[in-house]
Amino acid sequence: MTTRTVPGPRERLLESAKVLTYKQGMGVGVDALLKSANVARRSLYEHFGGKDGLIAEVLRESAAEDEAAYQQTMQAAGDDPRRRLLAIFDWLGEVVEEPDFRGCRYLAADLALTDPDHPGHAVTRRYRERLHELLERELRDLDHPQPGRAADQLLLLIDGVLAGGATRPDKHPAATARQLAEQILGDRRRRVHRS
Amino acid sequence: MTTRTVPGPRERLLESAKVLTYKQGMGVGVDALLKSANVARRSLYEHFGGKDGLIAEVLRESAAEDEAAYQQTMQAAGDDPRRRLLAIFDWLGEVVEEPDFRGCRYLAADLALTDPDHPGHAVTRRYRERLHELLERELRDLDHPQPGRAADQLLLLIDGVLAGGATRPDKHPAATARQLAEQILGDRRRRVHRS
Repeated sequence: MTTRTVPGPRERLLESAKVLTYKQGMGVGVDALLKSANVARRSLYEHFGGKDGLIAEVLRESAAEDEAAYQQTMQAAGDDPRRRLLAIFDWLGEVVEEPDFRGCRYLAADLALTDPDHPGHAVTRRYRERLHELLERELRDLDHPQPGRAADQLLLLIDGVLAGGATRPDKHPAATARQLAEQILGDRRRRVHRS
Repeated sequence: MTTRTVPGPRERLLESAKVLTYKQGMGVGVDALLKSANVARRSLYEHFGGKDGLIAEVLRESAAEDEAAYQQTMQAAGDDPRRRLLAIFDWLGEVVEEPDFRGCRYLAADLALTDPDHPGHAVTRRYRERLHELLERELRDLDHPQPGRAADQLLLLIDGVLAGGATRPDKHPAATARQLAEQILGDRRRRVHRS
């Protein structure tokens, strides 16, 4: 016999909102969220102050998970920053081919949250900044002459893969992006030792 | 005194749907559409068979306009296919900086229309194929050794620009993409005369 911790209303709301906002979009109704999470309306307001707060928290959790996934992907690829960066595109190739892939959560959020002051925007902006920092750090390790600009370029390719993966399931946008990434990185190998 | 043709219910519905689905998303309600177009519900069914048909027609009209915009942009850039292709990125730089730019209409549609059999998907798919053909034709004129693959790459950059433009208004994704496009095109100049 095992003892399982039953998730509380806060966790159930987060989980339901994570699934439903990705699958159906940010416009998913509060009633549908409450029903799926099986919680009372009061809980939503107690824990998140309302739907906007819940959505911001969903984005915050997803961003932390996704950032960790990038880091794990790079870590699994070893020490060479060139291999670590290219591994991102191999991994994205798998991500966009998952049957429930529905495009980039953060792009969808920025488009759907029409109020520029919605707290979700600060979360997505910070996520992209952290991703940029992550890429730029590897590019510095690679002794790339323009790590900031190359990070811009890689981020643009990542955006392109996530868009293409959502709209052209028959094509392989990640493989296309990987070829371009190889050009961006050139034939550089690690020159700086990781501290 | 001028005589103006007053748009009929069909045109008013199309115009309202074009604006509202772009601004508020595909989830915009039928009532809001009817109110904005100032038409009776009956007209929606008479002219489009319902909201799905209206949306498919909006996508069809938008795609025709956008394809024409690509063509005009290239035409204005002269005869050299390299300049014609790079002009696309200069133009996209202007598009994403327009105050009412809200990302790629077709990506948003594919994400929002969760029914894979929605007639809108065939329209967006055809639009991307035509864009690919447009790019590939120029690349052939440029005598590019891999015009199909290079067209995939340029299309990925276009997706990246439209995504980046919607989420990072402070950056200049089109300039980033243009640099990559220059690498894709290499230093090729027109070798084949346009017939």
